Amino acid sequence: MKKSHSETAIIRIHCPDQKGLVARITDFIHRNNGNIVALDQHTDRDEGRFFMRVEWELHDFEIKREDIAPAFQFAIATPCNMEWKLHFSDYTPRMGLFVSKLSHCLYDILSRYQSGEMKVEIPVVISNHKDLEEVVNKFGIKFVHIPITPETKAEQEKKELEILEEHKVDFLVLARYMQVLSQDFADRYPERIINIHHSFLPAFIGAKPYHAAHARGVKIIGATAHYVTSELDAGPIIEQDVVRITHHDSVERIIQKGRDLEKIVLSRAIMAHLNRKTLVYKNKTVLFE
Amino acid sequence: MKKSHSETAIIRIHCPDQKGLVARITDFIHRNNGNIVALDQHTDRDEGRFFMRVEWELHDFEIKREDIAPAFQFAIATPCNMEWKLHFSDYTPRMGLFVSKLSHCLYDILSRYQSGEMKVEIPVVISNHKDLEEVVNKFGIKFVHIPITPETKAEQEKKELEILEEHKVDFLVLARYMQVLSQDFADRYPERIINIHHSFLPAFIGAKPYHAAHARGVKIIGATAHYVTSELDAGPIIEQDVVRITHHDSVERIIQKGRDLEKIVLSRAIMAHLNRKTLVYKNKTVLFE
Amino acid sequence: MKKSHSETAIIRIHCPDQKGLVARITDFIHRNNGNIVALDQHTDRDEGRFFMRVEWELHDFEIKREDIAPAFQFAIATPCNMEWKLHFSDYTPRMGLFVSKLSHCLYDILSRYQSGEMKVEIPVVISNHKDLEEVVNKFGIKFVHIPITPETKAEQEKKELEILEEHKVDFLVLARYMQVLSQDFADRYPERIINIHHSFLPAFIGAKPYHAAHARGVKIIGATAHYVTSELDAGPIIEQDVVRITHHDSVERIIQKGRDLEKIVLSRAIMAHLNRKTLVYKNKTVLFE
Amino acid sequence: MKKSHSETAIIRIHCPDQKGLVARITDFIHRNNGNIVALDQHTDRDEGRFFMRVEWELHDFEIKREDIAPAFQFAIATPCNMEWKLHFSDYTPRMGLFVSKLSHCLYDILSRYQSGEMKVEIPVVISNHKDLEEVVNKFGIKFVHIPITPETKAEQEKKELEILEEHKVDFLVLARYMQVLSQDFADRYPERIINIHHSFLPAFIGAKPYHAAHARGVKIIGATAHYVTSELDAGPIIEQDVVRITHHDSVERIIQKGRDLEKIVLSRAIMAHLNRKTLVYKNKTVLFE
Repeated sequence: MKKSHSETAIIRIHCPDQKGLVARITDFIHRNNGNIVALDQHTDRDEGRFFMRVEWELHDFEIKREDIAPAFQFAIATPCNMEWKLHFSDYTPRMGLFVSKLSHCLYDILSRYQSGEMKVEIPVVISNHKDLEEVVNKFGIKFVHIPITPETKAEQEKKELEILEEHKVDFLVLARYMQVLSQDFADRYPERIINIHHSFLPAFIGAKPYHAAHARGVKIIGATAHYVTSELDAGPIIEQDVVRITHHDSVERIIQKGRDLEKIVLSRAIMAHLNRKTLVYKNKTVLFE
Repeated sequence: MKKSHSETAIIRIHCPDQKGLVARITDFIHRNNGNIVALDQHTDRDEGRFFMRVEWELHDFEIKREDIAPAFQFAIATPCNMEWKLHFSDYTPRMGLFVSKLSHCLYDILSRYQSGEMKVEIPVVISNHKDLEEVVNKFGIKFVHIPITPETKAEQEKKELEILEEHKVDFLVLARYMQVLSQDFADRYPERIINIHHSFLPAFIGAKPYHAAHARGVKIIGATAHYVTSELDAGPIIEQDVVRITHHDSVERIIQKGRDLEKIVLSRAIMAHLNRKTLVYKNKTVLFE
Repeated sequence: MKKSHSETAIIRIHCPDQKGLVARITDFIHRNNGNIVALDQHTDRDEGRFFMRVEWELHDFEIKREDIAPAFQFAIATPCNMEWKLHFSDYTPRMGLFVSKLSHCLYDILSRYQSGEMKVEIPVVISNHKDLEEVVNKFGIKFVHIPITPETKAEQEKKELEILEEHKVDFLVLARYMQVLSQDFADRYPERIINIHHSFLPAFIGAKPYHAAHARGVKIIGATAHYVTSELDAGPIIEQDVVRITHHDSVERIIQKGRDLEKIVLSRAIMAHLNRKTLVYKNKTVLFE
Repeated sequence: MKKSHSETAIIRIHCPDQKGLVARITDFIHRNNGNIVALDQHTDRDEGRFFMRVEWELHDFEIKREDIAPAFQFAIATPCNMEWKLHFSDYTPRMGLFVSKLSHCLYDILSRYQSGEMKVEIPVVISNHKDLEEVVNKFGIKFVHIPITPETKAEQEKKELEILEEHKVDFLVLARYMQVLSQDFADRYPERIINIHHSFLPAFIGAKPYHAAHARGVKIIGATAHYVTSELDAGPIIEQDVVRITHHDSVERIIQKGRDLEKIVLSRAIMAHLNRKTLVYKNKTVLFE
């Protein structure tokens, strides 16, 4: 089997579409003796926009790590007017978790973390309730209780931001966190806060979507993981999934069926984010292979 | 195999939930020597409402056809405060079809009709365009062209209603008919007009839902068959289904993928309606087994 | 009507189809002042077999608990030639868990157990490996390590059976337990051992189904929860689900996608079993509403 | 950039994986002033094999049509040890159809053909029964009746092959054709005969898969479109899909639900084949974007 055992570099790119982009980028890597282990590209012809993710082994690559960014910027990104990001596979991202009272998404994430499926550091879990403290402690992770009232919200968010900074959190996951973040907060982590909404967005935006789905008499329910923006439940969608319901399903059973969706969809979105498979453009998420 | 070869009677019921309903109804049938071939019941505990569909063979049934309704009314429906409908399986319903320019739903319906899968009479297809006249004629069905402009709409709807009446149409199917029916028209066929909307309702109500889905960046699209009410795309949902899309899918490809959903979902809804498997209560559709 | 807060009795029945069964059973409950909170019935016309599950409140029921079984046997079960089971909702079943090295199904079950979603006692987890001891301990559950080699298998199974008996285990779940149970063992818990097989049975029976799926080039993979019988992977299926894969998916990615299926499908099957929603007849599982 | 309105060339490639393949191929197109409108590539790391489909506009391309193949062979295919195919989008493939008695797949194909969705010529439909002659004639297509008995099979297949040749058929679709083709026949059209099998292969190979699915008590049924090889139901899978069933579904209802799958799955596979999106390697089908 040929899987990469060396560390890799990953570049994600978008730019105006133009001739020869793939050739130019892959040539940059090959000329410097990089072995490409994954390449996925997409051209949005309506927008005239090119998207690409390429991953190559660093082992024999002839450009030193710290020189890759300036070399790529000069040789390719600037002439092609690219927006781009570079990551190294041996850096383990630091993920902050916000929860409230429901444990299913939290457990799903922590069990993947502990089994090694989710390659991430989790320095801290923050909650506006104490209900899940014990669960978090069980996994040896720091739990911080920050209760929130309408009056204290601004001040408490400030405290949360300090904690995230102190723990050098790279991105944030709202695992059924039942508070809406302020616009200021959302703006601090652009494309770096992942929320799970318990409906098939854009249907049933806002509170109590399962009750709304039951009232409307839909035959299928869904869950949506998306990056948080300042507009409620309107950020770029990363992943969605659905499950069939019938007229027999009470709101309680819909909630139960929905939970299984929520945790799987959220974890898939986190995995995509961790593996640098997402790229946001104009409020839509390109999901690379 | 024990399948019914005799004709059957079908009763659909809803009423306030109360003790002994199933026993009472099945006893009525058994005492009169009816052999039940299908029974499905549902209790909505939140609403305190009971729903049931029961089908039995008429062969040895000791009440004459014309007396079943009064007998059931007197013995059961009145004391239990029921709303109910009686049908006989040997009556073939008469379906009117409204189409515009797109042929996929029309073909799907007509091929099921011609193969005998869809047991229905189709006395007439009405369209505001001439595009599908040839398709309809191919199946030996009458085609009537009734062009519609904002100015002529009221008058033309009157003409349509006359044609439906003249052809003794029992129910109406809008097979991607691109006109919104007036409230008056909708009220003439309550729970008897089936529309296919090309989105996962309640997401993307109104015109161009696939364009809206593409713009929002959803990862799954859907189609919804529902009974038409006076409120646009808000009637009781009969059936829905979905299909996964990716960032590679242009609007054109989304439209193509969606068409396969639309025709299947619409035909399933028509089949459920024809087999008397639907029952509407408070803008929701109970779908019996 | 609101949800039942009183304890309930549940009867599951199957018997030769005959006139008046539903009336007779519901009448037995009503005459004794029982309030039915759930009723689902199914007639298999090919087999001429009737299946029913009925649940009613014990609160005002006029037959004492201990007399329900003899009363039902005498009044209904014997004359109708029924096979049937009676359960009370206030008895919490005792579930044994067998695991090997993989934690995803175990975590999924334990997190539902701890959150109260899965109303069950778990007196013991048995494994042929020590890998998951720490996970089990974290949840305060007894872990027993019983290593198995081809030579020691018979003897070790005997030990396992003793432990299950000692802990008064009602039913057993194989949560990715990588040993095949002997026929003797399987026969000791008929319709009371639930296994998760990581394929869409009957495709890919036996070992390494994901490798086989990858080799065959299927476009969809599945998972199957079933009751264990003496024939490998051939017992009555309780629940199945599937997920789409593409040619991009390596065996490793298929395994990862499959895990999410496995744990959800297994937990759904356990929930159905716990809620007395399953009924096995001729190697097929009726799944009540 | 807008959608291509000029004709395009499509090349599908597979070869041993090696550095710089994408760069080399795209460079060949760009240097000759071709505008790429679609590019999808896949590396199977286990097999060490590279797959690619690239489509570019011919409008300004500086190599004449008839010279593209030799130029590509000399410049790229030979040095890289490629297997490859070249197609032009303005050639409309000629599809032969084999049917028996069931009309649903036939109607689905013919309606897509007539609406222009399926860009194909259909010079002839061959059947071993006369049942569908009228349907075929309705669409103005030639119908040939070739009855087959075990005794006449070899001779009749010879006649069929002559008809296909006479009508210059490029590829063949078995739209629920209930005969197994001989190995000789299958070998005449390698990767050019598409069959729809009414199960989720490799489950339920052979005759009466729905009966087998019902007997096994599966909770989900499927349909599989695949290229025909000499081994029954074992050729490379192009597309599959599934639908949920319950214990309520009789064999008749399973058959009906399955038909909707069959026709959609078959048509999707035909569309993929027509758009040159498929590439077979080691009995597996790469399905390009």
